[in-house]
Amino acid sequence: MTTSGQMVIGIDGDDTLWHMEKFYADAQRAYGALLKAYGSSEEIDARLLRTETRNIDVFGYGVKSFVLSMIETALEVSDREISGRDVETIMRIGHDILQSPTELIDGVADVIQSLSASHRLILITKGELISQERRIAESGLAASFEAIEIVSEKTPATYRTILKRHGVPVGAFVMIGNSVRSDIAPVLDIGGRAVHIPYHVTWAHEAHAPLASDSADTTATAGLWRLDSIREVPDLLARIGRAGTNDAPRG
Amino acid sequence: MTTSGQMVIGIDGDDTLWHMEKFYADAQRAYGALLKAYGSSEEIDARLLRTETRNIDVFGYGVKSFVLSMIETALEVSDREISGRDVETIMRIGHDILQSPTELIDGVADVIQSLSASHRLILITKGELISQERRIAESGLAASFEAIEIVSEKTPATYRTILKRHGVPVGAFVMIGNSVRSDIAPVLDIGGRAVHIPYHVTWAHEAHAPLASDSADTTATAGLWRLDSIREVPDLLARIGRAGTNDAPRG
Repeated sequence: MTTSGQMVIGIDGDDTLWHMEKFYADAQRAYGALLKAYGSSEEIDARLLRTETRNIDVFGYGVKSFVLSMIETALEVSDREISGRDVETIMRIGHDILQSPTELIDGVADVIQSLSASHRLILITKGELISQERRIAESGLAASFEAIEIVSEKTPATYRTILKRHGVPVGAFVMIGNSVRSDIAPVLDIGGRAVHIPYHVTWAHEAHAPLASDSADTTATAGLWRLDSIREVPDLLARIGRAGTNDAPRG
Repeated sequence: MTTSGQMVIGIDGDDTLWHMEKFYADAQRAYGALLKAYGSSEEIDARLLRTETRNIDVFGYGVKSFVLSMIETALEVSDREISGRDVETIMRIGHDILQSPTELIDGVADVIQSLSASHRLILITKGELISQERRIAESGLAASFEAIEIVSEKTPATYRTILKRHGVPVGAFVMIGNSVRSDIAPVLDIGGRAVHIPYHVTWAHEAHAPLASDSADTTATAGLWRLDSIREVPDLLARIGRAGTNDAPRG
């Protein structure tokens, strides 16, 4: 038995297993076009981000919060002059995201099936319960995971609680995800390891200050690796496994 | 050790531990007044309920869904003529519910503290993650519960999954809640027992066909009891405990 067999893998959902941000980006383009009388798309984007950020503690993450913030921003930039028909268009933009198809990212189906044969896998995903449950069901991946955790926020405390619940020592935990803010930084913070696989679009709210490894590609930096595709994960885990615990400075 | 010590108690959140529906009722009154040009409050209520019911599979439960359904209904009844200022008022009505205080229902604090000394307690609550997490934190009750389960829907499968996760035999499980649809019927359905404590306001969506016990008050009917107040729960559990398993026909 190799050391890699003892690693427990946490995996993010949106934009790690299935596409999501691209639907938001489409929505935001349509929204910018709708409100072009009130500002450039950059200005509208900035106002919307400000509204989203202001509302996040009360609304939480997810599509419904996004729709409510789009409506609030439209009222603001139009000085309450936005028409009912435009509000209806915003509602339709929201429905389009909610009902967008669940499309797995290239390589996900093969890799998850293969990893589940040799590792304990925990899906750790952030957002609204009902939307996440639909994505999970439609992904066809649920059976590959030992546990599924839908959380409202991914903080160090969130990860500590999940690891405790499932009896996972932090030194055995490796988190895979696209968001440095949600999937990488808090896991490194508690002494775990993380694999960052960037998605081609990043929501401004999830943008982050550069990490030491931002220029380091697949070179390990203090328990952090960066990959271009989930297809490279099995090889990386095998390498980590062969290297034993020497790669986990805070494990 | 009595049999009652072996019972595991599930407890609902909204309108069982803390007030919630009254804030919705206030909101709905304000909404009806806002739209009075488009119909009587009964007509507006009926249209809103239809929108909510149509959206439930996509939006799920909770305040954000309610606000989106209020906006959608306002667009419909006004034939898209609703003003930006009125949409803003609807948004404010939504914010008021989201930021309403967490007020424990009379007797809850004492009873939960007392029950937690002798029983395993599991909080099983339906709605949006972030709103429920806030209510739980503000209730001050979290430490009394062995586990907290926030779910998107309360079906027989939901309860089976929760009981399995916590190693609770269905015959040992008693659920306490205000909603027959969510807290009582699905629990009886899987062979558990239930205590119904009606709240003084019931959302039409959670209304239910009469159960056999609707006229039976505190008389046990096939594992179901009805009480006026959570204050009566400890005595009832003691009685059930003394009677052993004879009161649980499907346990």
